[in-house]
Amino acid sequence: MKRIKVLDNILAANDAWAEENRKFLVQQGITMLNIIGSPGSGKTALLERTADMLKSEVPMGVIEGDLETAKDARRIRRKGVAAVQINTGNACHLDAYAVHSALSHLCKGTKLKLIFVENIGNLVCPAEFDIGEAAKIAVLSTPEGDDKIEKYPLIFSRCAAMVISKSDLLSVTDFKVGRALKNYERINKQGAAFVLDSLSGRGAGKWIHFLKTLVRTD
Amino acid sequence: MKRIKVLDNILAANDAWAEENRKFLVQQGITMLNIIGSPGSGKTALLERTADMLKSEVPMGVIEGDLETAKDARRIRRKGVAAVQINTGNACHLDAYAVHSALSHLCKGTKLKLIFVENIGNLVCPAEFDIGEAAKIAVLSTPEGDDKIEKYPLIFSRCAAMVISKSDLLSVTDFKVGRALKNYERINKQGAAFVLDSLSGRGAGKWIHFLKTLVRTD
Repeated sequence: MKRIKVLDNILAANDAWAEENRKFLVQQGITMLNIIGSPGSGKTALLERTADMLKSEVPMGVIEGDLETAKDARRIRRKGVAAVQINTGNACHLDAYAVHSALSHLCKGTKLKLIFVENIGNLVCPAEFDIGEAAKIAVLSTPEGDDKIEKYPLIFSRCAAMVISKSDLLSVTDFKVGRALKNYERINKQGAAFVLDSLSGRGAGKWIHFLKTLVRTD
Repeated sequence: MKRIKVLDNILAANDAWAEENRKFLVQQGITMLNIIGSPGSGKTALLERTADMLKSEVPMGVIEGDLETAKDARRIRRKGVAAVQINTGNACHLDAYAVHSALSHLCKGTKLKLIFVENIGNLVCPAEFDIGEAAKIAVLSTPEGDDKIEKYPLIFSRCAAMVISKSDLLSVTDFKVGRALKNYERINKQGAAFVLDSLSGRGAGKWIHFLKTLVRTD
């Protein structure tokens, strides 16, 4: 079982870096959230809307993970929020070491309270890797279909909140919010859920309120 | 570099099974296509439409890959097409061995000409694993955004065709077909491209024609 052992070692090394990150974040009083969703599910748009609504109250920063391009970090910076881009090449998730390096850049000379890590667009692999976050947030867009909760249960069972994004497209897709929430509750008893449209901001108020409860006020 | 060596071994074992699959398929005169796209990009809907339009002319079968549930295989069977479901648990891609096992089930006692493998919903990992297919097909839905070609270049550079799905949502998203095609051509000189709506069938004629050119007539 050599293969299993090596994979275990890789995960153990990741977990050690995740613990380093967690210690650093607790020490600094920073809440870090790991945002996970499919490609094009609206993760960056959610962070743009969040920046608009929360940056004046809560000092925030973003770590952007993508295989290629720095497009998303540029989008966040245009909102007046500091962002560091990680390009993984072909790697399908962010690991704790990559986040560790990005954190030291992002936190240099500035006092943040909230950091979002936008993980690689992928509903599978990022769910398995601890990066030292306070909580995972799952983003599911309405055009993807409400069956994704049953088909990709790991992330939806492990997240502290599910954001159903692109609610403006509810009327032109067969996504049923009631069905999605029922499937979600079946595998995640504690998880919060939000339904919103990041472009117009409709429904985003509850999401912002939820974020405020996660930020340390000490 | 122990870790790299082990990963190389895993890939080598996969490639050996992929070659087995390829030999079997050539021998049987079967064209196998590896369908790759994000969760909810419309891969199953594309295969449902394809079944409706092509099954009377070309004997076909489908191998469905999902982490959990047999929903997609049931959808395909409802179209009168044979389907085998593979559930990978937490694995983020289909490997050649899993496909090998499914092939032997699917081909038992029946003469097929065309097999679709609907890979795990994931734009990253499936692109790296040869399963013995004749060609990879990338599916990109309009709500995902046309920037995905630049952000996930591996699959779009390696595919024989890109299907832009959910064209019915073009008017309610900021997806620009012209921009997508330009980015696609930059990294893939030979690849075909189709724009279609699987639900209504609009634009699917060219896709069906393309499939017919891939099927062996001997």
